[in-house]
Amino acid sequence: MAWPTDIVKLSRVRTLMEEQDLDALVVRAPDNLVYLSNYWCMKGYDALVFPREGDATLIALEPQLAEAQRNSWTKDIRLFKGYDEKDSRPPQFRSLDLAIRVLNEHRLTRRIGIELNMGTQSADRMVGEPTTATQIFFDSFRQIAGEVVDATPLLNEARAIKTAQEIERMGLANELAALAMEHVRDHIRPGMKESEVGAMFEGFVHGVGVGYKGKVEMARAFTLVWSGKGIATFTATGDRPVQEHEPTLLEIWVCADGYWTDLTKNVCPGELTREYHRLLDLLLQVFNEAVSYSKDGASFPELDRLTRARIAEGGYPGQPSHPICHGVGARAHEAPYAHQAGTGTIRKGMVLAIEPGVYWQGGGGLRLEDNFWITDAGNQKLCSYPDDFRLARAAGQTR
Amino acid sequence: MAWPTDIVKLSRVRTLMEEQDLDALVVRAPDNLVYLSNYWCMKGYDALVFPREGDATLIALEPQLAEAQRNSWTKDIRLFKGYDEKDSRPPQFRSLDLAIRVLNEHRLTRRIGIELNMGTQSADRMVGEPTTATQIFFDSFRQIAGEVVDATPLLNEARAIKTAQEIERMGLANELAALAMEHVRDHIRPGMKESEVGAMFEGFVHGVGVGYKGKVEMARAFTLVWSGKGIATFTATGDRPVQEHEPTLLEIWVCADGYWTDLTKNVCPGELTREYHRLLDLLLQVFNEAVSYSKDGASFPELDRLTRARIAEGGYPGQPSHPICHGVGARAHEAPYAHQAGTGTIRKGMVLAIEPGVYWQGGGGLRLEDNFWITDAGNQKLCSYPDDFRLARAAGQTR
Repeated sequence: MAWPTDIVKLSRVRTLMEEQDLDALVVRAPDNLVYLSNYWCMKGYDALVFPREGDATLIALEPQLAEAQRNSWTKDIRLFKGYDEKDSRPPQFRSLDLAIRVLNEHRLTRRIGIELNMGTQSADRMVGEPTTATQIFFDSFRQIAGEVVDATPLLNEARAIKTAQEIERMGLANELAALAMEHVRDHIRPGMKESEVGAMFEGFVHGVGVGYKGKVEMARAFTLVWSGKGIATFTATGDRPVQEHEPTLLEIWVCADGYWTDLTKNVCPGELTREYHRLLDLLLQVFNEAVSYSKDGASFPELDRLTRARIAEGGYPGQPSHPICHGVGARAHEAPYAHQAGTGTIRKGMVLAIEPGVYWQGGGGLRLEDNFWITDAGNQKLCSYPDDFRLARAAGQTR
Repeated sequence: MAWPTDIVKLSRVRTLMEEQDLDALVVRAPDNLVYLSNYWCMKGYDALVFPREGDATLIALEPQLAEAQRNSWTKDIRLFKGYDEKDSRPPQFRSLDLAIRVLNEHRLTRRIGIELNMGTQSADRMVGEPTTATQIFFDSFRQIAGEVVDATPLLNEARAIKTAQEIERMGLANELAALAMEHVRDHIRPGMKESEVGAMFEGFVHGVGVGYKGKVEMARAFTLVWSGKGIATFTATGDRPVQEHEPTLLEIWVCADGYWTDLTKNVCPGELTREYHRLLDLLLQVFNEAVSYSKDGASFPELDRLTRARIAEGGYPGQPSHPICHGVGARAHEAPYAHQAGTGTIRKGMVLAIEPGVYWQGGGGLRLEDNFWITDAGNQKLCSYPDDFRLARAAGQTR
């Protein structure tokens, strides 16, 4: 989708580049490309040369020219071929050659930032087979630049604070997630396979989300689905049947044109068991306390400690075995992370996924998760689907 | 899915390690992990230390222990935590620490191979947000090893020749693809959105594929779908409507427990136009000639030249702008690649995707693609769905 140039965002990045005395950034992780250019590559071979001053240069795969022209915030687009009759190397080598050429042309070789520590990246548009940096990529810039520094901390810092446009885009991903959850709530039946429930959710987002409100060009969802005893801290979707009277938990990532939401939503066909009523009451209390705590100026380590202490008081010490708070934006998981042995302060403009969970020995349990935009007035929940899914169920039954 | 240890495969890898005088390989790309251990990681943080002699060591994310024990070909499993209360670093650092420790313990520090040039990787089990190597990963091994070499050429060579077990596993992915195409053929209607067709295909594979015949633990599909004028060499799935009397083309990747198929299949609601009859006849001829040529001992550069020459003779010089032949296996795209400026010979045991295409100016065109296992008797097509989709349509109508 074409979006107006997010001047606020690009200015923040340039300010950080000035503070760190960088001539240029060269990014190739698909999420950083979307972030700085609004161009979402199909195959992960593409790159952006983003100078501190002047226009950026987008290096795009030839058949994506129309998409690049429609979406990119720079008009300086250089193309490389997927198949080049004279060059049998893979396409990313031609992209790298162009990036080096652009840096040389513009004499941007004094001090540059590349993604030396880009440990994870979100998907390209094709997904299923993303493209990663290689040793050759890292070495090539060292050969032409006076100094190469890791651009990751700078990009993490910039990305942590969202602009109005970013919140609008994440809102679209959250709207699609809520609609898809309502679709699942209305169509789930005991005995269905977990993977059929996942397929239903993902299919709804892809089918309805592409073209959604004329504002979304590409929408995709990824899920892990577990029902009843299948609920665990971390396993794959299986072919276990959906249980009546017990929750079916959906770990959800929805992506709208490169902007994400990371949610955990539950649905229960039938009347929840007493055991689950108790667990849900406990988790809602823990969840609401963590959400209330999350405001501008609050401490990340303290949020982690506080949430785990409440879960321990509720009878589940040592849980959960996964982080309970992290950033969301151009990835489903991004900096900052709340950790008791870490540092950091919650700031206005951040979007945080908050996700306490309790898992029973032998299977079963629950996790609640939504994304919260930190505002002057505390924070704002981004997905309308209720965390107390007893309410969601009631709404479904009145139809 | 638990599979018996593929002794033939592991022996081939060890022979190559001996030829290249390597003490050990350390792999972390999810596809190489599946290839050498049969363990498919959820998040891409995991690693395998694979020595030339003795048992391998799997380094697995703690909550995946049950999956690791069920599937892994090694009993030596070391676990790292997703959340460690004393360590605020991301999980992949703990995995890296363990890999280094195992190499030191076993004194495997003379000469090791890591994935220095792993330019692309297939998905982890979560997909949507894969994990990539960082500069720290590359540097760490240099600090402890006498010599670090790039393991990629060795793994490419080993992976190019498939074992009987690998063909069986790729057969499952192809069965699911054929069933999903039949499902699409029976349910596609003019006016549907391209993304709804993609969702239908992907949902079928995930819903039916998980648990398929008791032989598939995780199945997923990725598609690009274009109809009529939307058909191009390379664009994203959109919200264009399915055209009557014109093909809807599905670019398909189906993955069954880490083994893939890469296909292009077409379906046409209504009677194909005369223009498309002509194009399909031409492409079938080109396709069948390329397939006949592909046998043990034939030349990769010659296959590329020959196929492009036939397309040029048919009136479309310079087409297609993408490669027309590549390997398939633990990725949808892997070595070898056929290129007129490259080298290489087709060998018995390879599986090759063959995919000639012709794209019209202004939109529309066709691509045919299936995967072929090179055998003593020539080769064998792996997906039963017909490339002459006029036949597929007829079959659908007789129901």
